[in-house]
Amino acid sequence: MGPHPAVAAIRLAVRRVLHDVLTEHSDRVARSVGAASSSASAASSARSSSATHPFHPASAGEQPLVLVACSGGADSMALASALAFEARKLSVRAGGITVDHGLQPGSDLRAGEVVARLTAMQLDPVEAFAVRVGREGGPEAAARDARYAALDEAAERHGAVAVLLGHTRDDQAETVLLGLARGSGIRSLSGMAAVSGAAGRYRRPFLQIDRQTARKACMVQSLPVWDDPHNADPAYTRSRLRHEGLPALEKALGKGVVEALARTAQLSRDDADALDTWAADVDPSVRDDAGQLECAKLYSLPPAVRRRVLRRAVIEAGAPAGSLFARHVEEVDRLITGWRGQGTINLPGRVEARRQGGRLVIRQG
Amino acid sequence: MGPHPAVAAIRLAVRRVLHDVLTEHSDRVARSVGAASSSASAASSARSSSATHPFHPASAGEQPLVLVACSGGADSMALASALAFEARKLSVRAGGITVDHGLQPGSDLRAGEVVARLTAMQLDPVEAFAVRVGREGGPEAAARDARYAALDEAAERHGAVAVLLGHTRDDQAETVLLGLARGSGIRSLSGMAAVSGAAGRYRRPFLQIDRQTARKACMVQSLPVWDDPHNADPAYTRSRLRHEGLPALEKALGKGVVEALARTAQLSRDDADALDTWAADVDPSVRDDAGQLECAKLYSLPPAVRRRVLRRAVIEAGAPAGSLFARHVEEVDRLITGWRGQGTINLPGRVEARRQGGRLVIRQG
Repeated sequence: MGPHPAVAAIRLAVRRVLHDVLTEHSDRVARSVGAASSSASAASSARSSSATHPFHPASAGEQPLVLVACSGGADSMALASALAFEARKLSVRAGGITVDHGLQPGSDLRAGEVVARLTAMQLDPVEAFAVRVGREGGPEAAARDARYAALDEAAERHGAVAVLLGHTRDDQAETVLLGLARGSGIRSLSGMAAVSGAAGRYRRPFLQIDRQTARKACMVQSLPVWDDPHNADPAYTRSRLRHEGLPALEKALGKGVVEALARTAQLSRDDADALDTWAADVDPSVRDDAGQLECAKLYSLPPAVRRRVLRRAVIEAGAPAGSLFARHVEEVDRLITGWRGQGTINLPGRVEARRQGGRLVIRQG
Repeated sequence: MGPHPAVAAIRLAVRRVLHDVLTEHSDRVARSVGAASSSASAASSARSSSATHPFHPASAGEQPLVLVACSGGADSMALASALAFEARKLSVRAGGITVDHGLQPGSDLRAGEVVARLTAMQLDPVEAFAVRVGREGGPEAAARDARYAALDEAAERHGAVAVLLGHTRDDQAETVLLGLARGSGIRSLSGMAAVSGAAGRYRRPFLQIDRQTARKACMVQSLPVWDDPHNADPAYTRSRLRHEGLPALEKALGKGVVEALARTAQLSRDDADALDTWAADVDPSVRDDAGQLECAKLYSLPPAVRRRVLRRAVIEAGAPAGSLFARHVEEVDRLITGWRGQGTINLPGRVEARRQGGRLVIRQG
């Protein structure tokens, strides 16, 4: 008898990601070996070697390390259990990190509990990482920034090749709706990437797995899980979305909404990538010899491409990408499409845009 | 003292659209005059002439006719009132059509009432058009199909240059969410177009106006409005969305959701248009001399463009666009990106796709 379907599903999802991670890792090792020694034979043993000791045969200490970020909640506990199981079958070391945000009394005790549970799964190394959450960008953004800074630091220190994150399809659906509420176009609809961070460090194996499956997998494996009270706190936008917004949408539109939102994320991401590539490719051809944007050439671009060229130019001039909204870019666009002698447009990051002699001048004031 | 802000807003929206319609109409007339007579002087008088009598001076009977489609509800009554007001100031005749769907007892009496109200606004011609609603595609789609067929027929018969529709920003937001629930990509997020139909016949002046403004405009102009009970009937998806889904989303995400959804529609439309253009442009370059799609060339395209090329090919082979979903196209795409000897793929409209000798064979079986 095989494992419970929920357990089989989470293990398969992790196995696929580990396969990708190992393939990419061995490619990197092969390249670095090739570059360092020009030795063809070394590349063949690279798969079970680490990048720092490419010529030694594989040993437990030199297998690539994959970390799981674990809050103790159902999603990341399920992820940790699947990583522990699959890592044993592959040439991978598995470790775990739990971040103590210090936002609730006793959060250090809970972090200690998570460490104990991850250790009981035979993950190694396991550590709790206490962070100080700032205030910038609101409570959710500040906690996220602190968390990723901690995970980056831990990954560097342990030399991990990847950090697995437990975001599920439900999280993805919520992220798409949060992006939709910004109304800033398809990039903000593209949700979380399956692979992100420096050198593709962060991996999200559960983006196609629903939250219910993760919870079921914990239950049948008798894994105790911790329900973060923040997740049910209506002070948080995501929590309101999860407990009121999405259920109401499902009631109106049917049960397939979460899946549809997740698929929208993937399609939007591919579309946004293609259009960004187009804008980058076309950029040199709409500039004069001095590198200035020419209004007549911009005018002839499709609006979707023109707006992306303008957005790139404003960011390159120093505007922070996160503060630059669709309405800013639209205002710059009207210098091209609705020219009636407008004055200088002020943009985030003290960037100014104006039209002068058929050219667009975009620079920091 | 000027009009109430709500009335000013709806009139401005209609004025802008009438301006566009008249400009395009006079361009068309000028072109047809130029083509028929090669007379330069005729073109200058084209703006106030009709296409059928280009050489006669403007008279009431020959001014271009703009129709409003009016259900008697607040949105389209507001639209009719703004059209009546603005048309008087321009060289435009204004008429109205109400469609009697025959779905409720007494619907013919109500249609008669709407005719009386439009006539009281001095619209001319005004008519009630009784249709038979079929069953195809569900009750909402069937009613919509019957309605547009009637509007098309009436527009042709009266020689109208445009038909104004009262869809508001709230309708647009609902349409985006309905598209989101299909999960079939950014085209389905692009909502309703401001200009659509044959030769841009249909115009939606209120896509930036919210429902509350339209209702307010009716109130301050003492226009009685009719609330369609269908709009509150939870048997209809759109009604559930309007009365439960969207309010819950607004509660979770804040009051800007409707505006954000409407902006998403516009941005998605531009993005989808640009990517469709890209796919159409690249199409010949990924085919061999016999016109067959080459897998290796398809493979090198960005996924977003490749999927659109494939979608075009499947539709060209005979699949009905409305039945072809993202998952179908993904399955065909895997013949390119995940080739492991798959068999023939069956698609809507008896279209089959298979890979053969490095080519993609897509044809009706």
